[in-house]
Amino acid sequence: MTTQHPTPPSAPVPADPGPAAGAFVVFEGGDGAGKSTQAARLAEHLADAGRTVLRTREPGGTEIGEKLRGLILDHGHGTVDARTEALMFAASRAAHVEQVVLPALASGTVVVCDRYIDSSVAYQGVGRGLGVDDVLMINRWATRSLLPDLTVLLDVDAEAGRRRRTAGTGAEDRLESEPDDFHARNRRAFLDLAEADPGRYLVLDAGAGIDELAGRIADRVDALLGAREVRP
Amino acid sequence: MTTQHPTPPSAPVPADPGPAAGAFVVFEGGDGAGKSTQAARLAEHLADAGRTVLRTREPGGTEIGEKLRGLILDHGHGTVDARTEALMFAASRAAHVEQVVLPALASGTVVVCDRYIDSSVAYQGVGRGLGVDDVLMINRWATRSLLPDLTVLLDVDAEAGRRRRTAGTGAEDRLESEPDDFHARNRRAFLDLAEADPGRYLVLDAGAGIDELAGRIADRVDALLGAREVRP
Repeated sequence: MTTQHPTPPSAPVPADPGPAAGAFVVFEGGDGAGKSTQAARLAEHLADAGRTVLRTREPGGTEIGEKLRGLILDHGHGTVDARTEALMFAASRAAHVEQVVLPALASGTVVVCDRYIDSSVAYQGVGRGLGVDDVLMINRWATRSLLPDLTVLLDVDAEAGRRRRTAGTGAEDRLESEPDDFHARNRRAFLDLAEADPGRYLVLDAGAGIDELAGRIADRVDALLGAREVRP
Repeated sequence: MTTQHPTPPSAPVPADPGPAAGAFVVFEGGDGAGKSTQAARLAEHLADAGRTVLRTREPGGTEIGEKLRGLILDHGHGTVDARTEALMFAASRAAHVEQVVLPALASGTVVVCDRYIDSSVAYQGVGRGLGVDDVLMINRWATRSLLPDLTVLLDVDAEAGRRRRTAGTGAEDRLESEPDDFHARNRRAFLDLAEADPGRYLVLDAGAGIDELAGRIADRVDALLGAREVRP
């Protein structure tokens, strides 16, 4: 086994970071929902409380993932059909989980991640019409079935999302520049995922105030982490 | 629906090129088995017989596939774990099938392709230990379940393969430079796939003479195409 290929030979075993594990908190929602702002606020809150925190997003600094991200999001790499796009996202996600998220969780770190599997279900499964179940299957395989302990869904309607994300430069990448109904379908997909597994989701209206949102997210994560503490 | 995303919204429908279809012939086998030589001979034979032939291999000239191929095969893109590698191959394959193979088959062309799903089953499923069933599942999804009409397996033992492929430059890419037991496991995987579906395979000893191999392959493909002709 060389460092080139750290995946163990027994592939289908779900990732189990063990009893000393940290927690995996994911922010999801449409473009312009405020995920980055709230992820930063949560990371600050946790650090102030003495937690070891890793704030990340795919591809999270993995070299192969960064290169995949460039191919996926930049215009000008030729035709990218929906299946190819979905598999490239899954590949980037696999590298991020294997090289960044799982090692951090195993060392007791709280991982705060901007986007994860739900984004692929929304954008490729629903937005591109590849099907929710198929995109879930591919991504569970890619991640060795690692699910977030909590997903914070910042719900924003498509029009408001576009206003927010173009307020600065006006520039949009290849996915952001899809029409509003693409983003509206994605929004519904995020909400459906949350409704199917409510215990693992915190759904918030992204239009609320930044401080109010940050407070509610901090409370929920504190409760999650408190429930996980080993009692003396 | 723009040309950017030609995949139809109903995703799990298997590809069906229809009754006027060509035929899809794939060459498989370890590195150095002589696949390119025999694929060229078959293409020549078919063209001489008046067939429209497309000789291709992944990524087959798709722009996104070429870029993925560079990331997969070149050294120096950082750690590439096994799952990431398998998903990148599947992404490149999806683009090739969607943009090159299916359009050719639909127009009645005989597609002669160097490597396909079996190579991923052998190299990632067995060689890297990800599991045959999982790698098959990912790749069937990537290709909309398009299977070859005939797979020609050129069987070569690992040591002979290494001698053949380094006879020229001595240079090997990131996968070729794996140790011999990696290639030996792959060889067994190819043979197992052929034994599980013998009607769709022609297994030949790659050590036979080039002309003898070319003759046997031509006979088998002629029989396949003859059986598919519409009777007057």
